Amino acid sequence: MVFLATCLEPKLTCFAFRSAVLGCKLPQKQLFDLLEGVASGKVGMDCSVVPLRQPGLFLISTTDFFYPSVDDPYFQGQIGCANVLSDLYSFGVPECDNMLMILGLSREMGESERMIVSKEMLRGFNSLASKAGTEVTGGQTVLNPWPIIGGVAMSVCSAGEFVLPVNAKVGDLVVLTKPLGTQLAVNAHQWLKTNPQRYDTIKHFFSSEDEVVRLYHHAMVSMARLNKTAAHLMRRFNAHAATDITGFGILGHANNLASNQSEALDIEIRTFPTIKGIREIATIATGFKFNEGLSAETSGGLFICLPPDQAQPFIDEIQRIDGCPAWIVAECVPRKGEKNVARLAQNVTIIDVEAP
Amino acid sequence: MVFLATCLEPKLTCFAFRSAVLGCKLPQKQLFDLLEGVASGKVGMDCSVVPLRQPGLFLISTTDFFYPSVDDPYFQGQIGCANVLSDLYSFGVPECDNMLMILGLSREMGESERMIVSKEMLRGFNSLASKAGTEVTGGQTVLNPWPIIGGVAMSVCSAGEFVLPVNAKVGDLVVLTKPLGTQLAVNAHQWLKTNPQRYDTIKHFFSSEDEVVRLYHHAMVSMARLNKTAAHLMRRFNAHAATDITGFGILGHANNLASNQSEALDIEIRTFPTIKGIREIATIATGFKFNEGLSAETSGGLFICLPPDQAQPFIDEIQRIDGCPAWIVAECVPRKGEKNVARLAQNVTIIDVEAP
Repeated sequence: MVFLATCLEPKLTCFAFRSAVLGCKLPQKQLFDLLEGVASGKVGMDCSVVPLRQPGLFLISTTDFFYPSVDDPYFQGQIGCANVLSDLYSFGVPECDNMLMILGLSREMGESERMIVSKEMLRGFNSLASKAGTEVTGGQTVLNPWPIIGGVAMSVCSAGEFVLPVNAKVGDLVVLTKPLGTQLAVNAHQWLKTNPQRYDTIKHFFSSEDEVVRLYHHAMVSMARLNKTAAHLMRRFNAHAATDITGFGILGHANNLASNQSEALDIEIRTFPTIKGIREIATIATGFKFNEGLSAETSGGLFICLPPDQAQPFIDEIQRIDGCPAWIVAECVPRKGEKNVARLAQNVTIIDVEAP
Repeated sequence: MVFLATCLEPKLTCFAFRSAVLGCKLPQKQLFDLLEGVASGKVGMDCSVVPLRQPGLFLISTTDFFYPSVDDPYFQGQIGCANVLSDLYSFGVPECDNMLMILGLSREMGESERMIVSKEMLRGFNSLASKAGTEVTGGQTVLNPWPIIGGVAMSVCSAGEFVLPVNAKVGDLVVLTKPLGTQLAVNAHQWLKTNPQRYDTIKHFFSSEDEVVRLYHHAMVSMARLNKTAAHLMRRFNAHAATDITGFGILGHANNLASNQSEALDIEIRTFPTIKGIREIATIATGFKFNEGLSAETSGGLFICLPPDQAQPFIDEIQRIDGCPAWIVAECVPRKGEKNVARLAQNVTIIDVEAP
């Protein structure tokens, strides 16, 4: 990783950054507007679930892709893979039956760097798919102004083998499996490399540039980590509903999850486990709305509603298997208004999460 | 369609054309290079087929997306849908269990035109999915420099419910279900609208500009037509193998199909059924390599190897059900060299196909 980050750094960064800033996921409001009056007119949860012609079986599927946000193409491929699998995992489905890859090769790169970078993204994607116990069997590759990486994940399950995100109850505790702050970490590193003026506004938070690089690596490792263990444990610990935290930030996705529940409830978010160093950057880079819970995450954690007595055992088991922490960050509380919503508590506690 | 084509014409065209010319599918050679040494290192056929944990069942899936090539966003949505379903259809699978949509909204459009255009693409895609007897249940939407439209198609089948493209025999006749020439048709229309200099080189072939518009509409209708009937008939008529003709042209895809067969054989292409008017344009616009069989098609026909006594009855049945012609265009012949290839016959016959 470090080798590649060094030798290819100026390349992928350059294209990645511009696209990550300008491109990104469609803002939630625009997505609602777009879907209004078309098809079901609603933004669904992370996967689509359809009953099959074969009795008792369901096809669970998802597609997700985005623009690179890190320099290292191999790592970026892993992140693209972890990110699309995370949708499946949020339905408590640890087994992915098949993956397809979606790859955009940047026209703005020279041909040889384009090949090196794309091949490394492909390798990274494949390697993580393999680690997840699945395989990439096809896909689509196009030339595009910006590079694109992502894919499709599919699983065929019996009823009872997945958790629809609809059964949260008042009193449930909500567990988050990765720290927040990936977007700010990526940007801080970008400013260090290419935007001295912007970097000057945050450099007093760091004792050295190495510290920013470490912050960035912490975020990369987190984004490339599979949420598979959490998916595996969801049914065992009687999880009621889950989503994963990505482009709309923790509050945006919590809000989607709340509004998708059968029972009347609100989700109150009380804790932000945060990549160490991000808390300070967020005080300056207020445009990202990190403190409002709206800063985008890439390949973020699962956000899982569990019966109150199951939340801590669930966390302990993830720690035991993966060696990674998870946190109780929210609670399902009685509904205040006319529809289910998520909101931040009056005083959100920020926990600084150290790199593993 | 005509209404929208008129009112939105300058918008989608502008973005579509540039991307259709500059973007497009990765050239076949580059794709081979990219995949070399990564994963299986080979360019697969149109779908991926994986055995499921459930005994006797297979998951057949494909993803395909591209940049708009026609002005009318509703039609473009239909074409994107027909194109991805066509991959499934080429495996003799007429039933699609689920679709996901892949949508890129162009950053280079103003917000309100972007919304109108994207919504119409979405509607077109959904409407054709519905006509195909399936449903779009999710997808991914991003902001991108160029608009993108496409999707994912999936089907869960028992063994015997699909046709792997591996069993062609020497003596098989090959049927094509749509005429060739869509790329040249789209370009001729583009030249008429935005490139007078280029249009001047072909205008003597047409009695009026209306004739170019009709040619273009003929191509649009063809690209938006589902190959579902052919898929439905493949098993009944004992089809041995099939592919669909898209970005690599008829020769490119025939070559892929030939090299994918278990038996030693070559595919000799003898006939180009061609949208009427394209034959003439191809004599001037030689860069498209239409006469070499390498001009890209969008959402082209199925190219199906059938036992010799089944080819004409198959064609007759498509004509009876869809009211559309199909043609015997090639034959599987004994292999000449060391590996299976496709080639053009010495004198390829061009058949002018009238608009329906």
